[in-house]
This record gives sequence, structure tokens and C-alpha cells, in this order.
Amino acid sequence: MNVSASKLQYDVEMVEISVAEVRATISKIFVALGCEMKNAYIISDHLIDSSLCGVESHGVVRTLQYANQFQSGELKPCAQPRTESANGSIEVIDGDGGLGILPMIIAYEHGTTRAEESGNSTTAVRNVGHTGRLGAFADEAAKKGFLTICFGGGNRRKWRQVAPYGGVRGLLPTNPWCIGIPGGDQGPVVVDFATSKIAGGWVYAAQSAGTHLPEGCVIDRDGKLTVDPADYFNGGAILPAGGHKGYGLAVISELVAEALLGPATVECNWLIIALDTKRLQLNSQFGAIAEELLAEIRHCPPAEGFEQVEIPGERERLHRKCSGQSLVIPVQTWQQIGDLWSDLVKGP
Amino acid sequence: MNVSASKLQYDVEMVEISVAEVRATISKIFVALGCEMKNAYIISDHLIDSSLCGVESHGVVRTLQYANQFQSGELKPCAQPRTESANGSIEVIDGDGGLGILPMIIAYEHGTTRAEESGNSTTAVRNVGHTGRLGAFADEAAKKGFLTICFGGGNRRKWRQVAPYGGVRGLLPTNPWCIGIPGGDQGPVVVDFATSKIAGGWVYAAQSAGTHLPEGCVIDRDGKLTVDPADYFNGGAILPAGGHKGYGLAVISELVAEALLGPATVECNWLIIALDTKRLQLNSQFGAIAEELLAEIRHCPPAEGFEQVEIPGERERLHRKCSGQSLVIPVQTWQQIGDLWSDLVKGP
Repeated sequence: MNVSASKLQYDVEMVEISVAEVRATISKIFVALGCEMKNAYIISDHLIDSSLCGVESHGVVRTLQYANQFQSGELKPCAQPRTESANGSIEVIDGDGGLGILPMIIAYEHGTTRAEESGNSTTAVRNVGHTGRLGAFADEAAKKGFLTICFGGGNRRKWRQVAPYGGVRGLLPTNPWCIGIPGGDQGPVVVDFATSKIAGGWVYAAQSAGTHLPEGCVIDRDGKLTVDPADYFNGGAILPAGGHKGYGLAVISELVAEALLGPATVECNWLIIALDTKRLQLNSQFGAIAEELLAEIRHCPPAEGFEQVEIPGERERLHRKCSGQSLVIPVQTWQQIGDLWSDLVKGP
Repeated sequence: MNVSASKLQYDVEMVEISVAEVRATISKIFVALGCEMKNAYIISDHLIDSSLCGVESHGVVRTLQYANQFQSGELKPCAQPRTESANGSIEVIDGDGGLGILPMIIAYEHGTTRAEESGNSTTAVRNVGHTGRLGAFADEAAKKGFLTICFGGGNRRKWRQVAPYGGVRGLLPTNPWCIGIPGGDQGPVVVDFATSKIAGGWVYAAQSAGTHLPEGCVIDRDGKLTVDPADYFNGGAILPAGGHKGYGLAVISELVAEALLGPATVECNWLIIALDTKRLQLNSQFGAIAEELLAEIRHCPPAEGFEQVEIPGERERLHRKCSGQSLVIPVQTWQQIGDLWSDLVKGP
């Protein structure tokens, strides 16, 4: 399995820990921070699954960020998500200023239930912090037969990271899109991306690691291409993915999330469209035709630097399958999580 | 107004003709080819509007292609679009093997009507030829308050144009996406793009004009970048826009359009999701907030090679406004349309 060549590579010492141990450790941290037991397990299981899928950026390392946000009062640990309004096939869920993982799970559940009843549905999520790995929700929904389209944004005043196409100032956030659909023999196809050339976290990671950025992704304050993360922090910006195409998707996200749903209070606002594909299967051979299409793509001769052509969503599932019941995470991250627990036990 | 630097430039003699004369000429051509009078005017007005908007690729030049398809029997001039199935908020429209412009108009009308009733809707369109300029339909729907997402594909056996990310063979069509939403003072925001780096028509146009392709868009049969259109026709491929991002969107399109809606019989199959934004306006100041966001983007300092930062959809409306009641088209195109009419009058 080929890992994208443009991802930042870390050369750090790793440690293998059982899922059971990680789960016990981080769930007790979330409980100590004020989360209900049930929610602590939901958050823990989501982060662990992201790590098992190889999506480290959304994995157990996020425990540290969430803890910090709970402790600083930025997020409410005991938030109670509730339906704010429901109008026909449209529902708005308010996250009550807590972490976004549980509200997202609720939104996908409500959205797919209503789509099963009437064909399709729209669900908005507001007033939430980080929502975890969107691809996880889309994958689950697709396994049940739903096409989902999710996009978010609305916090451009806080995150002026991405230049509009043809511009030189960071004005937009990295506003992500995630689309999932049932696939062939190997399960759903899940497309999950930032509308910028690289995610914002990369620039921080590159700066912290003292390394360069991938080429062609970031401009300095004069609009010239740069690989130096310092140029980004000195008035530079990330470029939109695909030029005017990623820019266009980011503007749509921002209009929906800010102008339609109200400014994002914590992180982003979100819109989730769900569609029951069973109602559209004019072709009863959906799975077989999907598999034929996907198999042909998988067998495409790879380009230089690639071992194979991948179907979006399959790498994560394969990584999860190969991971078994243990996680491999940086020693330093696991140490920091241990220190966090020690501090919580000692108290202030 | 800055025209995208990467568009092919033609250095040909142009002629200015009144909208009334173009309309009279091409509508009588469509009637002579077997279209009902009403439909002939609908098709003519759509093509004229695309030319007025500066989208020449979808303008009156298409008269020649459509005439050829009607004459060869590839498209039925007197096709009768009909609702094939309706299930809750989902409807499927069959285009009866005719041109796709009228079925698309019907699909957006039905879709927005049902979205007004229940919040949102999904409409599929099958068995159609070219659907005209998608942005025109999205713009109209957005003026009435609807967010629409439209994407299509399903004809990969005919159009093996685009390589999957990490692959070297053309396996996918250029599967477009079009999204429209109400905007600020200057009207809707309309994002309308191919999921490939360039549209397929460019390669043909560059070959025909004996010119080069833009850099970084096309690979030869060995996967090496090339600007020679001949390399494309000798087993090369167009690259996906934004790498794995455009590739992901193209795969979603293909799964929906082929595996879900059945193989595309003429050109593409389409899915249109419509959402009544009035039901989601938690913020009653939608227009004002949208305008504030868009105005800030418009005022972003432009990058080298750009006169200004554009809001998607505004260039077309401004072009239409500046065009007035006349079209400027290549002399040769207008001559060919005249010849077509002469041939039709003379008969076989």
C-alpha cells in the first residue's frame, strides 16, 4: 500500500499499545475532564478507529487537544446536543458548545433515518468543536446504503488560511468536503478532502518539525511560491486545491456555514445531505457494476512513485484490518497522554 | 475582467450579429431538423445565453454539433421527456434519447418545486444528449433561493479521457460538478467545473488549432507530462483536477451515473440535489452576511497575472450585461451555420 508521497514523514520512535489499554486510558481522561462515561467511550472509540485507519492527524493524538479545550473552557465536556429546529426533511442540531463527534454521529443517524423515510434529507450541525474524521461517518452511512455529502466552514475570521484563486491573501479556511457512497465487493467509496492544497495542520507540523512544506502549495506575502513554513506565518497563504475548483467549493462551504447557518461559534458549521440509494437503484445490479468499475481502476498501471491506484476509502479500511487490536503511535504522544492522566489524578 | 490565462486563445476573425438574427436563424434550423417550435426556441435561447455569458464552448457553435447528432440519428429531435419514476422526494426523468437541455430545465423545475414543498429533493436525468451549460440552471435556481448540487457521468466506455490519481491510463470521463447558491448584492454564486485539469474539448481544440496544451495537464502513454495534443491521442490521458480530490469526485459521479442510474445511453446521466435555503436561514441576514464575505474576497489583492479576484458566476453575468443585444462569434462558425441552413432548405 502506497502512502501519498506528499505527506509529511516523521522519523520518531514509535510504541505499540493494545486497543484495550488505549481505550481504558483515554476514556478515563475524558471522564476526569467532565464527560459522561458513555460519551467518553464514543470519543475514545472514534479516535482509536482513526488511528487504526492510519489517519494519525485525527487519531488518539487529538486527546491532548480536546483535553486542552475542555480545561480552558473552550469546549463544554458535558454538552447536550439537541435538535434546534426541524422543518420538513431539514433538521438543525445544536452541539451546545461541546466536541463535534457526538453531534456528527447524531446528525448522520437522524439524516439517514429521515432519508430512509422520504428519499433524502438535509441536516445542519452548529455550535460544535472538532468533529473527528468525517470519512468515518460517511463510511458507516454508505454501508447502510446512503449517499452522503457533507461540507463545513464558517470560521474565516479565525482561520484566514487559504487564498482565493487569483489572490494573494489568506481569506478562507480549509473548508473540507466529504462524500460517501456504497461501492463494490470491498465496501463504500469515501472521498474526504480539504479544499486547500494541504490541510492547515501541515504548516504547523512542518514548522514544529523544522522541515519544508511540499512544493507548489503555499505562497508568501508577495504571492510567490515557497516551501518555508515561516513565510506562511509572515502573511502568506495556502493555495486552493485545483485552482478555481477548490476555491469555488470553499466559497460554497463558507456561504452555507456562515451566511446560512450563522457564524461558527466554536469551529465549523456543517451541512449533511443524505440520499437513500435504494430508491434510485434503477439498475438492480448496482454492486456488481460498481465493482466492475472500481476493479478496472484498481488495475490501472501506476504512475511513477505509486505502487498502485487506490480507490478512495479503501486504504483506511485495509489499514484498520491490518492493525488488528493494537495501535502504533509515537512514544512522545503516548507519554504526553500518560502525563495528562497523572496531572488529572493529582489535581490542580 | 481577467479571462483565465490558461484558456486557449483563438486568433480568428469575428463578426457581430444581433441576438434576434441569431435566434431566428438557429431556431428555424432546429425546426427544420424536426424539433417542435417551442423546443427549438428553448434550445436556441440557451445557446445564445451561453454565448452572451462568454462561455463560447457551450454557445451557438453547438448548433453544428446538435444538428449533426439529429441528422445522424444519434439524438431524437422530437424526444418527449417524461417522469420515469417518482418515489418520495426522488424523481427520475427520462430524456427519451433527445438533447439534454429541456430535460435539465424540467429537472431543475421539478426539483426546486419539490424542495419548496419538503425542504429538499433529488432528481435524476437519464437517456439524454448534451445538457448545455449547467451553470445557467444553477444560477436560475439560486435566484429563487435554492442551493443545488448537480453532477454527472456514466459513459466511461466511450470517454476514457482522465487518468485516476496515481495511474497512467485514461479510464474516466471529465465528469462535471455544478453547485449554485444565493449570494449577495451581485446575485448567486455558481461553481461549475470538470473534475479533470482541463475539459476534453480543449485537447481537440488544441489539435485542430495546431497549438500546444497548457502545461501540467496531460500525460503521454508513459505517464510523462506533455503539452502535445498528439500524445493524448496516442494513449495519453488528462490528469484529474487537484490530484486525488478531482479523481474522488469523478469516481463518485461515475458510481452514481453508471452503477446507480444505469449506463449512460447517449451522453451522461445526472443527479440534481435541491435544497430550499429559506428553510435553513437561521440567520435572517443571509444576503448581508453573504455580501460582506464576497466583498472581502473581491477586494483581495490579485496575484501576478490576474487583474482581480473573481466570485464564481459573476464573470458570466457581467459578460451577459456587457454583451447587450448582440453576439460576437467567429466568422467561420457563423458561415457554417448559414451553410447548414442552406443545405436544410435545399434538402438531400
